Amino acid sequence: MTGDRKAAAETVIARCRKLATLTEEPGRTTRTFLSPLMRDVHREIAAWLEPLGAEIKIDAAGNFRAIYSAKETNAPRLLIGSHLDTVPDAGCFDGILGVVLGVALLETLHGDHLPFAIELLGFSEEEGVRFGAPFIGSRAVVGTLDEDLLSREDKRGITVRRAIEDFGLRPGEIPDARLMGEILGYLEFHIEQGPVLDELGLPLAAEEAIVGQSRLELTFIGRANHAGTTPMHSRQDAIAGAAEWIAMVEKEGRRVSGLVATVGKIDAKPGARNVIAGEATVTLDVRHRDDEIRVRAVHELVRQAEEIAKRRRLSLRRGAELSQPSVAMDPQLVAQIEDAIRKAGCEPHRMVSGAGHDAMILAEKFPAAMIFVRSPLGISHSPEENVTVEDVEKAIGAGANLLEQLASSLDLSKKRVLRA
Amino acid sequence: MTGDRKAAAETVIARCRKLATLTEEPGRTTRTFLSPLMRDVHREIAAWLEPLGAEIKIDAAGNFRAIYSAKETNAPRLLIGSHLDTVPDAGCFDGILGVVLGVALLETLHGDHLPFAIELLGFSEEEGVRFGAPFIGSRAVVGTLDEDLLSREDKRGITVRRAIEDFGLRPGEIPDARLMGEILGYLEFHIEQGPVLDELGLPLAAEEAIVGQSRLELTFIGRANHAGTTPMHSRQDAIAGAAEWIAMVEKEGRRVSGLVATVGKIDAKPGARNVIAGEATVTLDVRHRDDEIRVRAVHELVRQAEEIAKRRRLSLRRGAELSQPSVAMDPQLVAQIEDAIRKAGCEPHRMVSGAGHDAMILAEKFPAAMIFVRSPLGISHSPEENVTVEDVEKAIGAGANLLEQLASSLDLSKKRVLRA
Repeated sequence: MTGDRKAAAETVIARCRKLATLTEEPGRTTRTFLSPLMRDVHREIAAWLEPLGAEIKIDAAGNFRAIYSAKETNAPRLLIGSHLDTVPDAGCFDGILGVVLGVALLETLHGDHLPFAIELLGFSEEEGVRFGAPFIGSRAVVGTLDEDLLSREDKRGITVRRAIEDFGLRPGEIPDARLMGEILGYLEFHIEQGPVLDELGLPLAAEEAIVGQSRLELTFIGRANHAGTTPMHSRQDAIAGAAEWIAMVEKEGRRVSGLVATVGKIDAKPGARNVIAGEATVTLDVRHRDDEIRVRAVHELVRQAEEIAKRRRLSLRRGAELSQPSVAMDPQLVAQIEDAIRKAGCEPHRMVSGAGHDAMILAEKFPAAMIFVRSPLGISHSPEENVTVEDVEKAIGAGANLLEQLASSLDLSKKRVLRA
Repeated sequence: MTGDRKAAAETVIARCRKLATLTEEPGRTTRTFLSPLMRDVHREIAAWLEPLGAEIKIDAAGNFRAIYSAKETNAPRLLIGSHLDTVPDAGCFDGILGVVLGVALLETLHGDHLPFAIELLGFSEEEGVRFGAPFIGSRAVVGTLDEDLLSREDKRGITVRRAIEDFGLRPGEIPDARLMGEILGYLEFHIEQGPVLDELGLPLAAEEAIVGQSRLELTFIGRANHAGTTPMHSRQDAIAGAAEWIAMVEKEGRRVSGLVATVGKIDAKPGARNVIAGEATVTLDVRHRDDEIRVRAVHELVRQAEEIAKRRRLSLRRGAELSQPSVAMDPQLVAQIEDAIRKAGCEPHRMVSGAGHDAMILAEKFPAAMIFVRSPLGISHSPEENVTVEDVEKAIGAGANLLEQLASSLDLSKKRVLRA
């Protein structure tokens, strides 16, 4: 059995690496919403599922969907999924691993059927690369892929609707993509994309929530002037103002437990060595599990920016702003996952996801939960993204345990077990 | 006489504004090295000089040159000049004012001739916009326009040599552009391009030196990572490291008297809101009159960058570096200028130029000095660049006084007076 699991884990990794070769950019892995080679990805996954007798379709939002039937008809369904699109110059595991692990879990059943069906979902879009809006795939299955999103254009002026048609699908059938019937819950395996498990020396974690996010853009406006002829005391230097604020963002992030605060982008104008910057635009990204703590931190940082601007005779322009609340995972499903991880021989770490995931969207309608697989060195969104065979083996083990736990609780009660 | 001076000052300003309309970009003033409309600039200036009987030519480096003869033949020459090219989206006075004031000074002679000839120089290139290398014009007249510079290409792949040919000139004749014969000295009027005179409430200054400059590019290299999933303590944030250093650059500039230190450009990669920056490249520009103080400041700032990088687990890459020593103006000519400014009814402020000027190149071979004219609010390299009629009137007055002083000292000694 252990030998089987190791072989299964190696197959999972090999399949992820195979899918990474299906790319729209030669030499690196980039696969955006419904690019033509997404067809090859679907074909590949379908070929792995065929021997298992799963019923396969591509829904009108381009999601790959396979149903592995239950022992009896009219049984509820457990959803297992993640996304099939990638960021530009991606690694092999972000998203893909969750779908491929789903295939592996069906394979561990060796043709047995459970008291519930399993629907495997390979979402067409999660990263938001092509249309600047993420979760197109998962929104369709919860019924929130609206007209606004369908009319969004990519940089060539092609709308989401048109992209769907170009792929040979019918936008009019999007309502049919919505999940119907009795759903036990949604389970998503995903690489951690952070260093927490690696630092703790643990392979797996159960997510209890996905953090809330604030996004903000600030422009410090001073006066562009000659770097040689303007004495220090006469300057209104936008870069110097922004730099002072960046230090405060980092300080606030370190001061508040569980908070992450990042300035990832800075653009200064005119941007010449010998000219004092007249404008510096910085982005802010703040995340925390507790929405109140997050909103308070952003408020404090904006106050500090205003104070810096005033003291330096700069003005401040606030750009696009967004505040997205945190999303709790289903507590009973999280507890089941902890049990399943423990039975796989691992210490079950509980953590909060710092990134958004399809599980966040599914959680709007269904009990949802995630299992994180350790990311060596925390590297993600990079060709260096990796997982180890041992960790994937543990993930398959924990997943199989979970299926068993759910099957036995459902057998006992013959009712839904996951909603309190 | 006062009425004359005021009218002359108004004419100077009107002529500068007229030349600003001769531009290669519609709607804004941009005139780079030997762009076709430089011919119109030459024609315009020539038309003002014709009534004075000056002998006009365009040398092989595209410099406008006019000789207003001395009372006697074989007399020495005083050079008056500045540059005719502009930065992109320039104002009306940077460079141009010095040439147009030269014309005005010849006009104040009302046909009289002095014991020395006056050569008016309108340099073809000072800003370095087209070829990324400044002082093409003034280098030709001191004989340092070398093969290396002539082979430099603009962004369309056209060399300096080819640009000269395209303008209808002969690169082979560049050696003839070199200034020969007895030269009393070089005088350059220029707008201050900084706020010092405006803050002091003074119209004119005598430059005693042009600062030395250090240029440096530093890249802080960390690790690009997910802004949501990477805890604060696990980050190697290149922007945060650069920001800490920018604060130190400003602090050093404020701490050392007479020093200016600027980070005018920052580029961060990958430059996304939700990704911790893996690289941040910043430029450094440091200037001081005293080369030793400047070099020490740069050394200290590099040490601090290394210290920051080490503490933050970043690495540091040093890019292009340049150290240009400060250039002293001729002390006797500076003293004469102070006298001339005082006689024009102004307090003669002595200062150091924070920017490079053609006078820096001319000083390699001849006694050189500059007169700065107040820049309201210190604005330059901008369409808002300005001068007042009153200040230009004072500049004409001081210039006329200087010519008189030089004429009388030369009359007395019949020898060169400007070199000790």
